[in-house]
Amino acid sequence: MTKFGRHDEKALVSLMTESSVRALEDAGATEKSIDAVYAASMLAGELNNQTAIGSALVDQLALTPAAADRVENGPASGGSAIKNAYCAIACGMYDTVLVTGGEKMRHVPAETITDYIATMTNMEAEYVHGVTLPSLAGMLTRLYMERYGLTEEDLARVAVKNHLNGSKNPYAHIQQPIALEGIYGSPEAAVNNPLIADPIRMYHCCPVTDGAASVLLSAAEKAKEFTDTPVRIAGVGQATDKMAVQDRKDPATLEALRVAAAQAFKMSKTTPQDMNLAELHDAFTILEIVESEDAGFFKKGTGHMALRDGVTALDGKFPINPSGGLKARGHPVGATGVAQIVELTWQLRGEADKRQVKNAQRAFSCNLGGFANNILAFVLERP
Amino acid sequence: MTKFGRHDEKALVSLMTESSVRALEDAGATEKSIDAVYAASMLAGELNNQTAIGSALVDQLALTPAAADRVENGPASGGSAIKNAYCAIACGMYDTVLVTGGEKMRHVPAETITDYIATMTNMEAEYVHGVTLPSLAGMLTRLYMERYGLTEEDLARVAVKNHLNGSKNPYAHIQQPIALEGIYGSPEAAVNNPLIADPIRMYHCCPVTDGAASVLLSAAEKAKEFTDTPVRIAGVGQATDKMAVQDRKDPATLEALRVAAAQAFKMSKTTPQDMNLAELHDAFTILEIVESEDAGFFKKGTGHMALRDGVTALDGKFPINPSGGLKARGHPVGATGVAQIVELTWQLRGEADKRQVKNAQRAFSCNLGGFANNILAFVLERP
Repeated sequence: MTKFGRHDEKALVSLMTESSVRALEDAGATEKSIDAVYAASMLAGELNNQTAIGSALVDQLALTPAAADRVENGPASGGSAIKNAYCAIACGMYDTVLVTGGEKMRHVPAETITDYIATMTNMEAEYVHGVTLPSLAGMLTRLYMERYGLTEEDLARVAVKNHLNGSKNPYAHIQQPIALEGIYGSPEAAVNNPLIADPIRMYHCCPVTDGAASVLLSAAEKAKEFTDTPVRIAGVGQATDKMAVQDRKDPATLEALRVAAAQAFKMSKTTPQDMNLAELHDAFTILEIVESEDAGFFKKGTGHMALRDGVTALDGKFPINPSGGLKARGHPVGATGVAQIVELTWQLRGEADKRQVKNAQRAFSCNLGGFANNILAFVLERP
Repeated sequence: MTKFGRHDEKALVSLMTESSVRALEDAGATEKSIDAVYAASMLAGELNNQTAIGSALVDQLALTPAAADRVENGPASGGSAIKNAYCAIACGMYDTVLVTGGEKMRHVPAETITDYIATMTNMEAEYVHGVTLPSLAGMLTRLYMERYGLTEEDLARVAVKNHLNGSKNPYAHIQQPIALEGIYGSPEAAVNNPLIADPIRMYHCCPVTDGAASVLLSAAEKAKEFTDTPVRIAGVGQATDKMAVQDRKDPATLEALRVAAAQAFKMSKTTPQDMNLAELHDAFTILEIVESEDAGFFKKGTGHMALRDGVTALDGKFPINPSGGLKARGHPVGATGVAQIVELTWQLRGEADKRQVKNAQRAFSCNLGGFANNILAFVLERP
């Protein structure tokens, strides 16, 4: 990975080259090792005037004539790129594939970014009416509060936990721990933590971030050429749901996650209870809670109770987002799905230093596209 | 396919839905048949405010929870989507996948389109200096003229041939035959056919087109559920070259095509001589000639002679672009690679009506990304 944060001085393709080189060096891979490059980015053309960024990346890395494509699935672009790279290896087309996700978005005014991100909502039912991702997250949060007794304090707890984890991650955008009373329940909290889309406040949203992340995938029998500590992609799932939230059966259930996670668990012959940790897609703090339930780790409506009890803390029984998650590591949208796999790989290799989860054998990630209408799920394990 | 042309009244996703429904109906496929959707588009976000268009398409088609991704590789987006769908089936992840490419670009002023298309050139060496695709094609044409004796009349001959083929294709953007003297060598030619980028003239360029095209891919053993006349993807290739034309070993050779075509022929255990027809990527007429050589159909520097001799005409020994090619069928960039496969499928099934190539058993297509720095090649055959 590159450090996530603000990178005004670097072009998007430079950021993606940087993380790619780190992955290639980590694996001791030469240009002859790489058969294909998958680039993930949501807004490379819109914000950086760079279309066909797979071609740009393979060229910068001097990996031609390796194949190169860009995969775009909104903020799940990284997950989708990994899935397609997985398929290309699994079918025997390639032995070794580099997957790099990246986004450079901080140079654009925040309100413009919110608009660009909203282009992945339903055009007729949502986008043209001014619906944005924070507004959808606000409505989901309100519903959760009414139905399951979630409190604003719970939302703040997700942020506090993930900021603490992020403070132990040198790649995180935000490495500053925050105290609960700094963002909830104190006189200064209202100032520090202003409303964005009622009841969502600033600290319930991920930041806008620049950055890139890379993974090298190879056929299992080739992996020993690159590392003594390979990590296996044991399960892959992807599912979609109705695009407009209003069309979904239950707007408080991430049906696409249920289906995608079930696919990943089935393929890996595991259950949620076999996982030791997870990287979830907390673009908004509410999402970490809902995902922790719909992926199968906690019963519906009880995710916030597990959070209150410290179950999902770094030293808890089932740590969620040891990296700091999107909330603290940051969310360069096209990079996020790849960064999740990078974090899980470090965790499963025992290389996560101060944020290492003990005895990590199996791990889960989910990467959300749209407002949760296109979801990737992965199960990784130490072989 | 939709009719290619101008579709002011329809949204991009509507065009893609239309071609998708036609493909599903042609195959008698129900929503339960489809495991995944691959959407190909170069500029869905930039020109139509629609990111994550795979999610939008799967929703419009009521195919949720099928997986959905967008693949973007400039004007080779369609080819890249087909390749990735192929891999997803070949590895056993899915049985049946819908691939739909689409672009809506005519509502934007032509000079703006030229700029957007140029975002796939090298940022530092080309784009910032105002290099456009027509200018690169102009330089390639000049080099070919000096080195191989290609004439401006030859360029016009490609247009005349492809317009004639397009006049027999009800899906083509341009269905009007043109006479050679209308665009070359007559007093009115200079008026009809103005210079765009010396020596390239208007009739040496494809039009700007709206449209969408779809194919249904399925595992071989499943194909009989959908059709009595399946067509087999026997060979797939993809290769990249240096992004900036100035960095290439020989700017008059499409090295990426040589590598990609060799991969596709090797995989299908065929040679160029086994092909009965080809759909080539004639975004500029020069490209059809260069590709006909670098794909292996004619010796380097002799493509224009084969053209002069009528070898590549519809009734010639090796018809190229029976559909009318990008020149006459039109070039909605993300749709083109899919439309090529649609045309070859119709040809191999014997369903191409007035433009049917006789005894078509095997066919080749190539789809160019960037200025030929990322190329997909396919070999299709009747089983």
